[in-house]
Amino acid sequence: MKQISKADLENLPSRQRANLVNSISGYKSANLIGTISPEGTTNLAIFNSVFHLGSNPPLLGFILRPLSEERHTYNNLKAISSYTINAITQDMYRDAHHTSAKYPENVSEFSATSLEESFKNGFPAPFVKQSPVQIGCRYVNEYPIVENGCILVVGAVENIYVVPSLLHHDHWAQLDRANIMSVIGLDGYALPHLEDRLGYARPNQTQNSILDGPQEN
Amino acid sequence: MKQISKADLENLPSRQRANLVNSISGYKSANLIGTISPEGTTNLAIFNSVFHLGSNPPLLGFILRPLSEERHTYNNLKAISSYTINAITQDMYRDAHHTSAKYPENVSEFSATSLEESFKNGFPAPFVKQSPVQIGCRYVNEYPIVENGCILVVGAVENIYVVPSLLHHDHWAQLDRANIMSVIGLDGYALPHLEDRLGYARPNQTQNSILDGPQEN
Repeated sequence: MKQISKADLENLPSRQRANLVNSISGYKSANLIGTISPEGTTNLAIFNSVFHLGSNPPLLGFILRPLSEERHTYNNLKAISSYTINAITQDMYRDAHHTSAKYPENVSEFSATSLEESFKNGFPAPFVKQSPVQIGCRYVNEYPIVENGCILVVGAVENIYVVPSLLHHDHWAQLDRANIMSVIGLDGYALPHLEDRLGYARPNQTQNSILDGPQEN
Repeated sequence: MKQISKADLENLPSRQRANLVNSISGYKSANLIGTISPEGTTNLAIFNSVFHLGSNPPLLGFILRPLSEERHTYNNLKAISSYTINAITQDMYRDAHHTSAKYPENVSEFSATSLEESFKNGFPAPFVKQSPVQIGCRYVNEYPIVENGCILVVGAVENIYVVPSLLHHDHWAQLDRANIMSVIGLDGYALPHLEDRLGYARPNQTQNSILDGPQEN
């Protein structure tokens, strides 16, 4: 094993340190967050930090980088209290990555890519039409991370639109059926394939697959 | 698209709501957190909520469920201010999942599985010997999530042990070279395969692959 100490980390060029620390914590989710400004300009930005925070009530979190530079997503979601989270597939990842380019505030990433905006059922923020999982969220709270100036944004799930073929009968969504991607570090795009699904673990019992057998509910 | 509204979510049986909300936010990281009690009993627990929080300083976060039931990992990491984060591979996922079984406090999950503990260079918490990425962390802070009683634990990266073949020359770690897994929901184990790595995005430029070409640093 190669050892990289705290001192080694401090001595790495910042971009290399970012590559390393961003990749070693494991695979990340790949999502596009859609918002709209009060003036009506839509915005779309890639985030690989969306994570599950709770299911009762249904809450998702994501990490925003420090507000030292302009953050269109943050300004918009604060202004209208709503945003969408949209899964990124193998057909979308190049356009999704491109949304990280610094376009001016009056240019929508929907117009700079082939991703299409979709407004549904009166929800104020735009969904991504091509995405097989589209989630409408309401802004709930934020937690400033004092160690580095990042912000944890907490949102409540208001509406889910999902391609029906992803859903098992117990409402588990098998993401690889729609070629949803995951991310390594800042810029690596990987395509996962489901290997197994395991039953509830009990002491001194062997782990059984529940992929094709009875589901425990 | 199938629509699942907030009211539909509320009406789902809790286990099904958990399956759905846990899976729709995308692929999760797959890690084992290793700790040791002041009495010397090691503990190993699977977490799929470890995420990158910052690289300068290098910080990782993870979400702990509410402390309403006994949390050995939390008690230990508070007591000794140290813990390890260890990647889960295709060879390890059944044992890793099994660490979620409720063993009593005086039974180490290392003894209940074939996962082996490894103490290195005086670091107080145990690493998982089989893991291709092993990270020693120091407890830094915690943020109580008032919406549901969960806790965001923030740790500083003190030491990284990594199989050298994962590292590109710019310190980006290609996780699929060691068959590191990712998780869907609470119990689905997927094996990702790297498809592409993309260059820094600039307005009005096509996204180029940097997998085999020059790296931008």
